[in-house]
Amino acid sequence: MTRPILAEAVGSFLLFATVIGSGVMGESLAQGNVAVALLGNTIATGAMLHVLITMLGPISGAHFNPAVTLVFRILGALDTRQALGHVAAQIAGGILGVWCAHAMFGLDVLQLSTKARSGAGQWTGEVVATFGLVLTIIGTLHHRPRAVPAAVALYITAAYWFTSSTSFANPAITLARSLSDTFAGIAPVDAAPFIACQLAGALLALGAARLLFPQAELDKDATADA
Amino acid sequence: MTRPILAEAVGSFLLFATVIGSGVMGESLAQGNVAVALLGNTIATGAMLHVLITMLGPISGAHFNPAVTLVFRILGALDTRQALGHVAAQIAGGILGVWCAHAMFGLDVLQLSTKARSGAGQWTGEVVATFGLVLTIIGTLHHRPRAVPAAVALYITAAYWFTSSTSFANPAITLARSLSDTFAGIAPVDAAPFIACQLAGALLALGAARLLFPQAELDKDATADA
Amino acid sequence: MTRPILAEAVGSFLLFATVIGSGVMGESLAQGNVAVALLGNTIATGAMLHVLITMLGPISGAHFNPAVTLVFRILGALDTRQALGHVAAQIAGGILGVWCAHAMFGLDVLQLSTKARSGAGQWTGEVVATFGLVLTIIGTLHHRPRAVPAAVALYITAAYWFTSSTSFANPAITLARSLSDTFAGIAPVDAAPFIACQLAGALLALGAARLLFPQAELDKDATADA
Amino acid sequence: MTRPILAEAVGSFLLFATVIGSGVMGESLAQGNVAVALLGNTIATGAMLHVLITMLGPISGAHFNPAVTLVFRILGALDTRQALGHVAAQIAGGILGVWCAHAMFGLDVLQLSTKARSGAGQWTGEVVATFGLVLTIIGTLHHRPRAVPAAVALYITAAYWFTSSTSFANPAITLARSLSDTFAGIAPVDAAPFIACQLAGALLALGAARLLFPQAELDKDATADA
Repeated sequence: MTRPILAEAVGSFLLFATVIGSGVMGESLAQGNVAVALLGNTIATGAMLHVLITMLGPISGAHFNPAVTLVFRILGALDTRQALGHVAAQIAGGILGVWCAHAMFGLDVLQLSTKARSGAGQWTGEVVATFGLVLTIIGTLHHRPRAVPAAVALYITAAYWFTSSTSFANPAITLARSLSDTFAGIAPVDAAPFIACQLAGALLALGAARLLFPQAELDKDATADA
Repeated sequence: MTRPILAEAVGSFLLFATVIGSGVMGESLAQGNVAVALLGNTIATGAMLHVLITMLGPISGAHFNPAVTLVFRILGALDTRQALGHVAAQIAGGILGVWCAHAMFGLDVLQLSTKARSGAGQWTGEVVATFGLVLTIIGTLHHRPRAVPAAVALYITAAYWFTSSTSFANPAITLARSLSDTFAGIAPVDAAPFIACQLAGALLALGAARLLFPQAELDKDATADA
Repeated sequence: MTRPILAEAVGSFLLFATVIGSGVMGESLAQGNVAVALLGNTIATGAMLHVLITMLGPISGAHFNPAVTLVFRILGALDTRQALGHVAAQIAGGILGVWCAHAMFGLDVLQLSTKARSGAGQWTGEVVATFGLVLTIIGTLHHRPRAVPAAVALYITAAYWFTSSTSFANPAITLARSLSDTFAGIAPVDAAPFIACQLAGALLALGAARLLFPQAELDKDATADA
Repeated sequence: MTRPILAEAVGSFLLFATVIGSGVMGESLAQGNVAVALLGNTIATGAMLHVLITMLGPISGAHFNPAVTLVFRILGALDTRQALGHVAAQIAGGILGVWCAHAMFGLDVLQLSTKARSGAGQWTGEVVATFGLVLTIIGTLHHRPRAVPAAVALYITAAYWFTSSTSFANPAITLARSLSDTFAGIAPVDAAPFIACQLAGALLALGAARLLFPQAELDKDATADA
C-alpha cells in the first residue's frame, strides 16, 4: 500500500467516524432539540476536516471524496489507476470508520439506515453543496493553497446548515452513511440519486472554475498539489 | 460577463443562499429556541463569508455588498461603470441565491416577507453594524490584507448578536431578504430605511478611517486590492 | 485627539457594545437556557476581540483594558501620560458603547446594574481570568506577535466558561458593565473588589512572565508593539 | 525549576482548570440539555489548547500530556530525566488546576469522582481518541509546525463529540479528573483502564506515523521542536 493510499484510508476512517460518532453523541444528549445536535455534528466535522487536510494534504491531496478525486483526475493531477486507488481507500477506510463509531457507542456494528432522504429539494441541495465544495477547493488552491484546510472545513460547516440535505457532498460518505441507522444515516435506496447529484454538482463547479480562473493555472495548481 | 462580475454574482448567490437556508434550517429544528436557531444562522454565515472572500477576493474584491462597493468607488478602487456592474451582479446573483434556498427547502420560490423590522433601535443597529463592517474592511486591508477573510467573517459573527437588527449591513441582502418570508426575511416596506441607515453607517466608517489611517495609504490599499 | 487615543476609544466602544448587546440578545432569545445565552455572548465577544486587535493593534496596541495598559506601562511600552490617555479613552469609549447597546435594543440608556457578583469564588475567578489574559498577551507577543488577535480572542472565549465570574478581566469593562442592568451587568457595589482582583491577577502574570521568558526580550517586545 | 518544567506546570494548570471549570459552568446553566453543556465544555477546551500551545510550545513543546511526552521520548526529543520532569509537572500543575476550578465555583476543593466511565465502547473510544491526537501532533509538526496549535485544538474539539468517552486522551488529565465529582469527572476505579487504552492509542499512532511519514524526518522534527 502506497503512502497516498494509506493517507486516504486513514483520513477517511477518522472523518467518517467523526460524522457518525458526533451525530450519535448529539442526538443522544440534545433532548430532542435537533438544532443543538446538528451544531455538535457540524463543529466536530468541520474541525476534523481542518485537521486531516492540514496533516494529510501534502501526502495524498486529502480528498476523502470520490467527487473531488474525479475532478483532480480530469485536471490531470492523478492518472486513472491512482484515482481508482484513492476511491477504493476512501470507501474501505470510511466504512471501517463508520463501524468503529458504532463499536465506540456500543451499537451493532453492521447496520442499514432506514432514514429517508429524498425529493427534488434535497437533490437540489446535493448539487449546490457539491458545487460549492469543489469550487472552494479549486479556487482556494489557486489563490492561497495554505488556506485550503480552513476553507474546506468552513465550507462544510456552512453547508451542513444552508442545504436542505445537510450536505453529504461526497459519494463515499453517502455509501458509508447508508450503513448506519443513526442521526447521520441515509437509506440505501436513497443513496444513488444523492451520488448522481453530487457528481453533477462537481462537474458544474469545474465548469464555473474554468470561467473564473485561467485554465493553464488550474492545471498547474492541480499538478503541484497532488 | 467579465470575471469580476461573475465572481460577485457567484459569491452573492452562495452567500445569500446561506443566509436564507441556514435560517430556515435553524428555525425548523430549534424547537422554538430562537437563540439556537440564530447560532446556526451565525456560524453558517460567518463560515461562508470566510470561504468566499478567500476564494473570490483576488478576482473582484469580494464585496457582495453595494455599501462596500460604494466606499471602494469613493476611494478610487473602481470606476462608476465597474461599480454599477458589481452592484447589479450582487443583486441578481443574490436573489437567485434566495430562490435557490427556497427550492432546496421545498418552499414557494417567489415570496414576500411579512416580518416587520423597524424602529429607532433597529435603525441605530444598522448604522452601527455597517459602520463596524466597513471600518473592519478598510482597517484590516490596511494593516494585514491576508487577514481580511477572517476579520469580515468574525465581524459579522459578532454583529448578528450585538446589534438589535441582527446586522443586515448590506443593501443587496436587504432587498433579497425582502423576497423571503422566512427566519431571515424583512418586510419590503421596512427595507428602505434599513438601506438608508446602512449607507449612513458606511460613510461614517469612511470618515473614521480617514482619521485613524493615513489618507494616502488608504487610496493605495484600495487600488491594490481591487 | 491622537490616533492611538482614538483607536482605544473606537475599539472599546465596539467591544463593550458587543459584550452588552450580545448578552441582551442571548437572554431575550434563549428561553431561559442561560448556557445558550452565554454561548452567543461568548462567540460574539471572542469574534469582536479578534477583529479589533487585528485592525487597531498596530495603532494603539489594542489594549481596551486598563490592566493591560498598566502592564505595558511597567514594561516601558508607554509613558505615564500616554497610559492615562489610553485608560481615559477606554472608559469613555466603552461607556458610550454600553449606552449605544441600550439604545439599539430600545432600553433606557442610563441604567445601574442590580446583578450581585461577589464572594471568594468569583474573586478568585477574576484573579485567574486576568492572570491568564495578561500571560497570554505577553507570551504570544513574545513568540508569535501575529498570533495575538487569535490568542486573546480564544483566551476570553475559554475564560467566559471556565471562570466562575465569566471573566470580566478588565477594570474599564467592569465600570461600564455596572451601568447596565442586563445579562452582562454587575452591581456598582461589587465593581471595586473585581477591579482589585483583576489588578492582582495582572501583576501575578507579569511575575510569571519574567520567570517564563527572558527579561530583556520582554521589554523589547513591549516597546516594539506599542 | 527549569523553564520547560514551569511551562508544563502552568499550561496544565490552566488547561485542566478549563476542562473542569467549563464543565461545571455548562452543567449548571444548561437546564439538563447535556449537549449544550458539552458545547460549552468543548469550545472552552479547544480555545484554551490553542492559546497554551501557541504561547508555551516554544518553551516546552506544550505537551500537558504524559502520552505525548512518552512519544517524544521515544522519538528522542527529550531524555528520560526530562520526560519524567515533564510528567511530574503535568500531574502537579494539573491537579492544582482542578482544585482551583473547585475553589472558583465554591465547591469542596478535595473531591473524588463517582462518575462511572467504563466498558468496551468507551475503552475503544480512548484508543481512537489518543491515536488521532498523537497522529495529528506528529503529522502537523512534520508538514506545518506553525499549524500545530490550531490542529490540536480542533482535533480535541472534534474528539469531544465523536468518541463515546468524550476523549480524555491524556493520562494526567484522567488522574486529575478522578479528583472532581463534576461534569468532567471519572471514578478513580475507572482511571487505570482509560490510561492503558490511551497509551495503546499513542503507540499505535507512532506506528502509523512511521508508515505515513519518512523516519529520518520524524526524528528531526521532534528534536527541532523540543
